[in-house]
Amino acid sequence: MKKMVDLNSDVGESFGVYTLGNDERVLSYVTSVNIACGCHAGDHNVMARTTALAKQYGAAVGAHPGFPDLGGFGRRPMAVDPEEIYQLMIYQIGALQGFCRAEDVPLRHVKPHGALYNQAAGDFDMAEAVAEAVKRVNPGLTLFAPAGSKLVEAGRQKSLRTASEVFADRTYQPDGSLTPRSRTDAVLHDPEQAADRILHMLSSGEVEAVDGTKLPVEADTICVHGDTPEALQFLDRLYHMLHQHDVTIHAPENSR
Amino acid sequence: MKKMVDLNSDVGESFGVYTLGNDERVLSYVTSVNIACGCHAGDHNVMARTTALAKQYGAAVGAHPGFPDLGGFGRRPMAVDPEEIYQLMIYQIGALQGFCRAEDVPLRHVKPHGALYNQAAGDFDMAEAVAEAVKRVNPGLTLFAPAGSKLVEAGRQKSLRTASEVFADRTYQPDGSLTPRSRTDAVLHDPEQAADRILHMLSSGEVEAVDGTKLPVEADTICVHGDTPEALQFLDRLYHMLHQHDVTIHAPENSR
Amino acid sequence: MKKMVDLNSDVGESFGVYTLGNDERVLSYVTSVNIACGCHAGDHNVMARTTALAKQYGAAVGAHPGFPDLGGFGRRPMAVDPEEIYQLMIYQIGALQGFCRAEDVPLRHVKPHGALYNQAAGDFDMAEAVAEAVKRVNPGLTLFAPAGSKLVEAGRQKSLRTASEVFADRTYQPDGSLTPRSRTDAVLHDPEQAADRILHMLSSGEVEAVDGTKLPVEADTICVHGDTPEALQFLDRLYHMLHQHDVTIHAPENSR
Amino acid sequence: MKKMVDLNSDVGESFGVYTLGNDERVLSYVTSVNIACGCHAGDHNVMARTTALAKQYGAAVGAHPGFPDLGGFGRRPMAVDPEEIYQLMIYQIGALQGFCRAEDVPLRHVKPHGALYNQAAGDFDMAEAVAEAVKRVNPGLTLFAPAGSKLVEAGRQKSLRTASEVFADRTYQPDGSLTPRSRTDAVLHDPEQAADRILHMLSSGEVEAVDGTKLPVEADTICVHGDTPEALQFLDRLYHMLHQHDVTIHAPENSR
Repeated sequence: MKKMVDLNSDVGESFGVYTLGNDERVLSYVTSVNIACGCHAGDHNVMARTTALAKQYGAAVGAHPGFPDLGGFGRRPMAVDPEEIYQLMIYQIGALQGFCRAEDVPLRHVKPHGALYNQAAGDFDMAEAVAEAVKRVNPGLTLFAPAGSKLVEAGRQKSLRTASEVFADRTYQPDGSLTPRSRTDAVLHDPEQAADRILHMLSSGEVEAVDGTKLPVEADTICVHGDTPEALQFLDRLYHMLHQHDVTIHAPENSR
Repeated sequence: MKKMVDLNSDVGESFGVYTLGNDERVLSYVTSVNIACGCHAGDHNVMARTTALAKQYGAAVGAHPGFPDLGGFGRRPMAVDPEEIYQLMIYQIGALQGFCRAEDVPLRHVKPHGALYNQAAGDFDMAEAVAEAVKRVNPGLTLFAPAGSKLVEAGRQKSLRTASEVFADRTYQPDGSLTPRSRTDAVLHDPEQAADRILHMLSSGEVEAVDGTKLPVEADTICVHGDTPEALQFLDRLYHMLHQHDVTIHAPENSR
Repeated sequence: MKKMVDLNSDVGESFGVYTLGNDERVLSYVTSVNIACGCHAGDHNVMARTTALAKQYGAAVGAHPGFPDLGGFGRRPMAVDPEEIYQLMIYQIGALQGFCRAEDVPLRHVKPHGALYNQAAGDFDMAEAVAEAVKRVNPGLTLFAPAGSKLVEAGRQKSLRTASEVFADRTYQPDGSLTPRSRTDAVLHDPEQAADRILHMLSSGEVEAVDGTKLPVEADTICVHGDTPEALQFLDRLYHMLHQHDVTIHAPENSR
Repeated sequence: MKKMVDLNSDVGESFGVYTLGNDERVLSYVTSVNIACGCHAGDHNVMARTTALAKQYGAAVGAHPGFPDLGGFGRRPMAVDPEEIYQLMIYQIGALQGFCRAEDVPLRHVKPHGALYNQAAGDFDMAEAVAEAVKRVNPGLTLFAPAGSKLVEAGRQKSLRTASEVFADRTYQPDGSLTPRSRTDAVLHDPEQAADRILHMLSSGEVEAVDGTKLPVEADTICVHGDTPEALQFLDRLYHMLHQHDVTIHAPENSR
């Protein structure tokens, strides 16, 4: 049984007068947060506020860069070439690094957002651009990436520390990818079942795909949400079940 | 006679498919460049390209943050409160710092752009917000500010190294501010006269306002442009006259 | 006693994944809506949805153009010259007119938003630019403008039909302007008192400023909000008191 | 021999301080212009200026809507669903219609831009969304679409008048699509050869694909560029050769 795992959540996704999510509630559970960097969501005011809040709660601060598509919340697949993805990453990680310095809190990790995360998971050239950008800005940062993806692979090739990410409330395809949200069996709705799945991943190193296939899975960090009452209930259940089974919830250690 | 002065220019103000200025030509003359940071102009691709170009030419790299107003090129006065100005500065300096790390070139200074520069020059609260942001991101950065302005004052109060900026081709009001561009006597059109004025500033520490008033003026750095044939001619004249008079052209030394 | 008045509300101010306000609740009370046009808030999807919703509820549809400042929600004063304000108005009214055609519902009025509304209320050149734009796009549109303002005056000079707007929950200065939100006495918090003030305006044609001065006031349309439980309570109280006093709630009739 | 054809060009693609293209030169040749609508390029000021210029030169005014991607100039393929494409079209056509009213010049046609044009050419659901939007805003508008594409087909199914577009300087694939710009044989560089190809299309109703296949091709309108000296030379050659062969250059007639 794996005895340590990280809980991470995407935060700081408000913009201007618009509020999204429930960052303060989420921060009472998670050990790592991924802060939006002003492209798919977030702005300079939100980034400052969220970085200060993460510091106050003691969560590890990470950058959550996305496509420059506020209207589509960075979820729309876009044809952006690897060279530009590299620059987009540098820009956004740099910007958040600025707030980390201003608040005197270390930047610890990077997790791409939405379509950028998904495209880099399956396309090695993009994955390499993401990993190279992280390395060039700060080789001590941990790269959060979907367990078993090309993004984990690219990070390791670049000698980055990686954290393999799993999802408590999503189902898996036989090839290890997440079932697309457009399908009815994409999301688990029972908190008990979701927490059990996570425990099974931690104890067996496996997850069962929708067709019954057993897939090997690393679970260094679990992505959780807290933006709906249902999501908070999920999170609460998972949190307590991990404690019951003596699994320590802790951010990944940075090697440098 | 002051024997050393910096020549600086605003660069990296292209965006997407749009090209502005003639950065490469300018870089053959200047010792410092102020790179736009993606708010009033510039984007991640342009910032990367421009940072690399500055490194190649050996110019000192500075951040050139502005208001988030691409449509108005950051020139429109906006009512932005000091707290938000502080965050805008952090965001943009941080982003450029990312490219500096990626290109392995030091970030040396910060010069606000357009309306932000003008508003901070005359409003101490804004000036303080700008200076505090620079200090929090990196206290070793030099703050470029209009000679005699509240922004110089705020920078010194925060113990930042400052570089007082003068303009070769602009006239001055009796209060030391630049004559607004809306007036017919705002701009000098004779390269000879402009170069003479600069030499006079360096030798006497004074500049003559439009009404004949003698104003004390520090001239640590001279702002030049190279985006038109006329501007390049100005620049060329100034450059050679400084050499003739054994004035060394050199970026300000950073204290830390 | 004036026996007819319009209730209007700003709607369609959501953007992308971000939701703002409670448009459907508000639409069960008001007779006119002002739909954001994609500059200070709103986007093409939100505009389409909101236009369809207004049609379904039978509210008169108006355009609610603002400054191109999504980050500041169009509330930040900006130095935009009258010529550009004219073009900004044309663009935004035209865009909403597109959705009105697509939904086959008439565009009835225009009400500028936020800083644009305030600046045009006090500056005749801006007011004239706003009124001229409305006239050029469609001279049959009604211009909603603060009672007693330069914007009403400009609209009348251009032979536009105007609707003088009052606020139920805001206090007035002796010069007829709204007390700035930064002051503690800017907003009324008692629904009863607010409704009484409106009735008094309708019966006497006067409103009392914060210093006791009696100001003449036309009240063709009352601006209401419904984005908080308190706002909805206000709206409900006002709506019922108008009914009790046999005041018909009705959108302004368009002359052409 | 077809004795009438339209010459069209994309114009109004400047933004803020950024200038693109050479609209005035192009307008001395073409009979139709497609004006960018503020999403992939253009802004309210540019749209107003360009509409007035087109009126002055007597060119037919069309809307040139694109993806909301100024940074990528609307050239990056994006996953936007048909429902949203419909709304994007309504917004942009409506906005330009506003300027047409203000300048008292009729809006005559619509031609989607870049990735939106290409995606709609090959995907019938997108094509239908584009055509339906045009129809809902104004069924009298002509839809400009690539000759032989699904967009022509969708326009006809919606009973819109369509203009089949061909390119003077681009080569064709055996399936009738343009050779992607990434390939070395995508673009013709000889003005003589390009003009001959157009004449051949007009006389034979055929074009030869890169592999020699003869493809039937309608040529109602020819897309030309004028943003480089080379492009202007092309345009000039084509213009004069059409005159020599007594081909009348004329905008498509609108049926209603």
